[in-house]
Amino acid sequence: VKPSPYGEKIYEGKAKILYRTPKGTLVHYFKDSATAFNAEKKQEFSGKGENNVRLSGLLFEYLHSKGIRSHFLKALDERSFESLDLKMLPVEVVVRNILAGSLAKRLKEQEGRVLNPPLCEFYLKSDEKGDPLVSDDILIALYGQSATDLSKLKILALQVNESLKSIFDKAGITLADFKLEFGKTPHGDIVLADEISPDTCRLWDKVTGEKLDKDRFRFDLGDLMTGYREISDRVEKVLRG
Amino acid sequence: VKPSPYGEKIYEGKAKILYRTPKGTLVHYFKDSATAFNAEKKQEFSGKGENNVRLSGLLFEYLHSKGIRSHFLKALDERSFESLDLKMLPVEVVVRNILAGSLAKRLKEQEGRVLNPPLCEFYLKSDEKGDPLVSDDILIALYGQSATDLSKLKILALQVNESLKSIFDKAGITLADFKLEFGKTPHGDIVLADEISPDTCRLWDKVTGEKLDKDRFRFDLGDLMTGYREISDRVEKVLRG
Repeated sequence: VKPSPYGEKIYEGKAKILYRTPKGTLVHYFKDSATAFNAEKKQEFSGKGENNVRLSGLLFEYLHSKGIRSHFLKALDERSFESLDLKMLPVEVVVRNILAGSLAKRLKEQEGRVLNPPLCEFYLKSDEKGDPLVSDDILIALYGQSATDLSKLKILALQVNESLKSIFDKAGITLADFKLEFGKTPHGDIVLADEISPDTCRLWDKVTGEKLDKDRFRFDLGDLMTGYREISDRVEKVLRG
Repeated sequence: VKPSPYGEKIYEGKAKILYRTPKGTLVHYFKDSATAFNAEKKQEFSGKGENNVRLSGLLFEYLHSKGIRSHFLKALDERSFESLDLKMLPVEVVVRNILAGSLAKRLKEQEGRVLNPPLCEFYLKSDEKGDPLVSDDILIALYGQSATDLSKLKILALQVNESLKSIFDKAGITLADFKLEFGKTPHGDIVLADEISPDTCRLWDKVTGEKLDKDRFRFDLGDLMTGYREISDRVEKVLRG
């Protein structure tokens, strides 16, 4: 194995490798693999890593311009960006503007109903436990979270939602739902982390309703990278004018 | 079919038949059947209906004495009691003092952890949808419930919990968790309904930890009626002195 140009490898997941740099920041290296259904379905898509780095970078920078902090520092190359090294909270925060995905399935309801105000849900981040849906009370009673932090997570997630909805709307895309992760700085500030990409968002063409996100892979709805590139190209066009 | 002595039959479920009396009250007739796992497992237990009427009556009257209203009016005979005819809310309220049952399974955690303060969860009452776990926000956004009613449900359920915990404790029984249902009077008051029995509560012997409730049937842990009668006898002894 040749030594990494980024630093010490500290984690390798299904779609990402993390390195810690000598100065204490992290490098997120995006792989080309897509996984779904707890990694039961798996495939490589050439260009996926590059695309997700590009879109995440665009969106984190856009959110910064709206006053929303994230761990994102800068793009390093086509496949990786540098970030703060946060103490991650073991919570996936899901915001839903439209009923879809696991919630529609769990409730045995049709996809597509508008949720206004948007819903905010917490899932425990644990591959081993299958990322179960959890209430505030459960996170507090069993998993060491504080009520203050959880209410901050909700406020931040809904702020991110307003900004993302607006930019996707200008790009002709409906933001149906998405997943965020957050971490804490050494000062205790809660800051947006992870990525924002078609792997973590449900994004539908506003006119045709076509699904442009990872559901293409999950349910074999069409070429994945065509959808992913369409999203990044449209968002870039809106943001770069 | 001979006419019912109670009134017009308006509903027949897995464990109960409901009649509406000429004066507008309801009669709950308790069958001897036990069902579990969405009625996939089913069995008759002689004496079960009678036992559940007895325990529900004892507990509703005890709650009345503690200032907690319910639909219960009076026992009619060994198998049935009379109640108010409420407009039922489509919500099952679950209170948990100890981690057990579906929550332990969903979180892939061991049973037995004490939850202090107790947890209060809502499930949508819908056999067809499999009674899914729902948040306040989902009940409001999709199922027409009001935030005010839901917060009343929580307060009432936790009050019921305090009273029931205390009486079961005196009977040497741990109240691990239980399910309540509520309805509204024509005046809009929210009132406790349904039943309180070993079908709807997890009740464990305080000393031995033996499960005395419907889990005996679900998981073949021993004779059902031995557990059910033990609970009613002990509670009756505490209440009647």
